Amino acid sequence: MTDHSPMPVALGPGREFASIARWVRQWGARAHGIGDDAAILDVPSGTRLVVSTDTTTEDVHFRRTWITPLEIGWRATMAALSDLAAMGAEPLGVLIALGAPESWDGQLDEVLHGVGDACAAAKAPIIGGDTTRSPVLTLGITVLGTSTAPMRRDGARPGNVIYLTGALGGPGAALEAWLAGKVPRATHRARFARPVARLSMGAWCAANGATAAIDLSDGLVADASHIAAASSARLAIELASVPVLGGVLAREALASGEEYELLVTGPPGMDVAAKAARIGTLTPIGRVLAPAPAEHSGVIVKDGPRRVDPPAGYDHLSPQ
Amino acid sequence: MTDHSPMPVALGPGREFASIARWVRQWGARAHGIGDDAAILDVPSGTRLVVSTDTTTEDVHFRRTWITPLEIGWRATMAALSDLAAMGAEPLGVLIALGAPESWDGQLDEVLHGVGDACAAAKAPIIGGDTTRSPVLTLGITVLGTSTAPMRRDGARPGNVIYLTGALGGPGAALEAWLAGKVPRATHRARFARPVARLSMGAWCAANGATAAIDLSDGLVADASHIAAASSARLAIELASVPVLGGVLAREALASGEEYELLVTGPPGMDVAAKAARIGTLTPIGRVLAPAPAEHSGVIVKDGPRRVDPPAGYDHLSPQ
Repeated sequence: MTDHSPMPVALGPGREFASIARWVRQWGARAHGIGDDAAILDVPSGTRLVVSTDTTTEDVHFRRTWITPLEIGWRATMAALSDLAAMGAEPLGVLIALGAPESWDGQLDEVLHGVGDACAAAKAPIIGGDTTRSPVLTLGITVLGTSTAPMRRDGARPGNVIYLTGALGGPGAALEAWLAGKVPRATHRARFARPVARLSMGAWCAANGATAAIDLSDGLVADASHIAAASSARLAIELASVPVLGGVLAREALASGEEYELLVTGPPGMDVAAKAARIGTLTPIGRVLAPAPAEHSGVIVKDGPRRVDPPAGYDHLSPQ
Repeated sequence: MTDHSPMPVALGPGREFASIARWVRQWGARAHGIGDDAAILDVPSGTRLVVSTDTTTEDVHFRRTWITPLEIGWRATMAALSDLAAMGAEPLGVLIALGAPESWDGQLDEVLHGVGDACAAAKAPIIGGDTTRSPVLTLGITVLGTSTAPMRRDGARPGNVIYLTGALGGPGAALEAWLAGKVPRATHRARFARPVARLSMGAWCAANGATAAIDLSDGLVADASHIAAASSARLAIELASVPVLGGVLAREALASGEEYELLVTGPPGMDVAAKAARIGTLTPIGRVLAPAPAEHSGVIVKDGPRRVDPPAGYDHLSPQ
């Protein structure tokens, strides 16, 4: 539970503080206890705290001409909340570190509106933040959650089935269209601009036998390789089983990042149980294998009998 | 307590992940459980969670030519930890959101070394983070702490004494020298480059009767005005009582930001008790008064019988 302070926000004079006060008013009941050096929260006993931070940067993660200010705020927030979904955690609070050049000042209210909408959709209170000048718009979102038994990356075991939430390829296809100066399909654009963190599904998987999970921020193969490395296992993915959006080739979808779908490993039958529980769709897309002597851990993609070279994922420190 | 995972860091291929693995190795025992989508922590029962985020941005908070890469990492981390000190909280964990242009790649190890040193000095484990490209170096540091009774800004009461840790003016004087193309005094430079968060003093004050506290990131008068507004009080500061570093005028020190000293309100005698407990120096610098009908809440600075106009603090969203 968060600190439901009855205090109105009371800050000293200055334009920075006036902006913060205006955003807090706009968020209404979504904001709790903002106005101290730090936020105060209670973590329910019997739960563990789950924490992650994620930064969205203009011209690295999006361009100003691609999506609206409101969508920028929404997307940044959902991308961060997706890390809680990947651990099976329930949101406890969100902190916003905003960096903005003066050219953005007229649109910051809309950006923060998007942050507020995403927090409302995820039932995550906004508990604090920080504002500063920056050469480009940056949104550093820190998310806190709780879980009785968080999912990690190191628990995948040979014999486990690999499951995927949702269908891939939308964000990659939208990016490709924008970079080629074209207008992306509405379905592809929506997957980039309005992702939804799989919080209910993550929590359900954690409580229903999942052995490991990760969200697809770097792309299916890149993120599967993190589970393979942490679990010392090989993950064999069947290309034909991977659900893709219309207008996307399965091979393209393997490298599509910023997806915010979950890759989950666990016992056979989780897909049937999830459907019966009406929690959403889990699609089996492969199996966890023991590490091979020659290949150690890693990811194998198979297209029927043929093995496909997996594409590289997105690496934020490599030259582009 | 943090998650003391025995797992070595196991991440997939890529330069970004190689860098992260190298930093985690360099941090050694200071890093705990990095390698999942989110960090897992246990919050001791009977304590409340205290959380804050703080961003340091190149050319906003420092210039590359002023301080070393190691000092940049140290300073950003201590600035964030200072918010825990202001609440009287004990550090539980630190998350690092790093944004860097390619021109910084050769010096990132040093920056992260400085982060690690500051965390070691504060006994704060590094529990996770995020890396991305950015047009300038940015360090978004999120700090988590615990406290049985965190100090807030809204508890200052008429009759309380206003106390200050340390001596002011160093960072302001160093900045002024750099901006004038001069070399700052070593004592002034050190206060800017190597601040130390007043964690022990903050925890001691919280346990020994303090009614409110704030850290001086915006400057004495600006931050005192936040306590005045939150507490609906007037804070009267005696200029001659404010401790200043050699080479700094008291009036200049009132507006010197990035100080990371604490302003604390509480009953008379806390200064004597802190000295007896050998926890450090608290200097009485003024009194909390009831709000005046004409003036409401606010800060008054007095130089003997004369009233001094308080200088404006630093406002990150105002044109500079």
